[in-house]
Amino acid sequence: MQQRNVSVLGTGKYLPKKRVTDSDMDVLLGVKKGWVLKKSDVSVRYFVEDETASEMGARAAYEALDAAGLTFADIDCLVCTSGTMEQPIPCTAALIQKAMGQEASGVPAFDINSTCLSFVAGLDVMSYMLDAGRYRRILLISTEIASIGLNWSQKESAALFGDGAAAVVLGRTEPGGKSRIVHAAMQTFSEGAHLSEIRGGGTKRHAQNYSSVSMDHYLFDMNGSEIFRLASRKLPDFVEQMLQASGTHIEDFKLVIPHQGSAMAMRLIRKKLGIAEHQLMYITPDHGNTIAASIPMGLHEAIRLEKIERGDRILLLGTSAGVSLGGVILDY
Amino acid sequence: MQQRNVSVLGTGKYLPKKRVTDSDMDVLLGVKKGWVLKKSDVSVRYFVEDETASEMGARAAYEALDAAGLTFADIDCLVCTSGTMEQPIPCTAALIQKAMGQEASGVPAFDINSTCLSFVAGLDVMSYMLDAGRYRRILLISTEIASIGLNWSQKESAALFGDGAAAVVLGRTEPGGKSRIVHAAMQTFSEGAHLSEIRGGGTKRHAQNYSSVSMDHYLFDMNGSEIFRLASRKLPDFVEQMLQASGTHIEDFKLVIPHQGSAMAMRLIRKKLGIAEHQLMYITPDHGNTIAASIPMGLHEAIRLEKIERGDRILLLGTSAGVSLGGVILDY
Repeated sequence: MQQRNVSVLGTGKYLPKKRVTDSDMDVLLGVKKGWVLKKSDVSVRYFVEDETASEMGARAAYEALDAAGLTFADIDCLVCTSGTMEQPIPCTAALIQKAMGQEASGVPAFDINSTCLSFVAGLDVMSYMLDAGRYRRILLISTEIASIGLNWSQKESAALFGDGAAAVVLGRTEPGGKSRIVHAAMQTFSEGAHLSEIRGGGTKRHAQNYSSVSMDHYLFDMNGSEIFRLASRKLPDFVEQMLQASGTHIEDFKLVIPHQGSAMAMRLIRKKLGIAEHQLMYITPDHGNTIAASIPMGLHEAIRLEKIERGDRILLLGTSAGVSLGGVILDY
Repeated sequence: MQQRNVSVLGTGKYLPKKRVTDSDMDVLLGVKKGWVLKKSDVSVRYFVEDETASEMGARAAYEALDAAGLTFADIDCLVCTSGTMEQPIPCTAALIQKAMGQEASGVPAFDINSTCLSFVAGLDVMSYMLDAGRYRRILLISTEIASIGLNWSQKESAALFGDGAAAVVLGRTEPGGKSRIVHAAMQTFSEGAHLSEIRGGGTKRHAQNYSSVSMDHYLFDMNGSEIFRLASRKLPDFVEQMLQASGTHIEDFKLVIPHQGSAMAMRLIRKKLGIAEHQLMYITPDHGNTIAASIPMGLHEAIRLEKIERGDRILLLGTSAGVSLGGVILDY
């Protein structure tokens, strides 16, 4: 157990203007009517038109600041916790700082990336800096454009994703406050490193090698069933260790907010871990899988819909490309 | 001042097999003999042939473990602190874990990115997790392939860079040990976000838009003189604040290990901060600018050449795309 006196002070969300229904996706993917909904359970996802990742992140960040009753001047550090990047250089956090109109603020900005678990890793890591008093308030921003990298010939995978951003303002808990991080854990098993990947666009396969022959390397490629197998094998022990280390039972959680990887992954998590239906935050049907923004969006929706209140114990949990498992137990 | 009981336990370095001299570069860039050396002061840099970033990182990491008298089983967390990535998905840290043959280890692996300051940011951030006892030993690995993204028509910039990797094993300081992080700071001014960038290859300009017309967007683009102006304006105050907060004078440093951005940037740092020549670690001539690997390579060389010994106070300092300034004062 590694408690940290850290509170979620406010959250925000931004969804792109373009709303794409499952029927729209049936047409885009060239499948028969109803296929997308049946396969993915995603009725609506949003795709960017002219929005950039940094613009979406900036909007979510300002909403989170409003919710916290703060302004940018109260922020000491800005961390982008996304699985995709806007440009190879500089880091997306610097571009978000700029999109927020805070170019001269000097607020340190950098990225933490563990694909879909970037927010969970960022929350875990940065909470130590808050707890030690290095920073007073930190903005974590996950902003993702999945749509640009979808492989439309991998229809089941393409049906899952959506774009969007979520932001969280973190601060130290005031004396007497109930909020804290109770425990966190992460594991990476790179035996699955190539089960979920985009091979091209980095230093191994540069964009200059892009061609109609090599194009699949530059698009998202997922072996869903193998990821599922690996996660099924590893996740129960991983969660059991977290519960034991923190003295928590699964029924103690007011809410479990999982990465909304897919409806199948949600069912796996529910069944394997014995989570009751009312304990599960499920936003897949009207968001899709928004990569690392998925968990903070779930948190945002849980707060907005008053599914949790101060002091409630919750579990943020997910798997990501890598393959990594990650979780944070926190008293909201 | 924010002290942390953290020690550098070992360091490692890997340079690619292909050695490229300034004369080779004169030919590659189509300039007259002697131009590259005069402009860059880089006699030798190394470019990858068949090496990947994760393979280079794995080699540097094993050398760092050897230097520390440890094995991978002693490591709790692996963080890739690079400015470039091997693939868009998954994070490079997972690929390094795999390249190290540690696929089933479960050791958490993620990336921290603030371009050339990624190592400095990673050292700063992760030291809080060590100090709090969350992890006992952490591997930080910076592994960079600059050569693939050089714009050969921007000759002055192309002359500067080299590929390579460096790794550092961090641990908690044993009782009675002299090693510690004394102070650290970071600032980001995104007014300079587009002064040093690669615009294409992320979600804003996907590789699928690469063409002979758009190709410059996918290559490194630096406005050196503007970066220089911004850094000159910001760096003296930034360092002065670090010195004041830590009660250190510039002459107290046994060594200043700056980011080896360019010979011009080194001269700026020396002059503006009043650093004596013997206090400056200068590895530019036989490495070039290896992006985020540059500072840990300087640290590795300083240890190897016995320029520092246990307890010596040193300053790691640099600027990066973003534009960010970052520094760590540590007693080695």
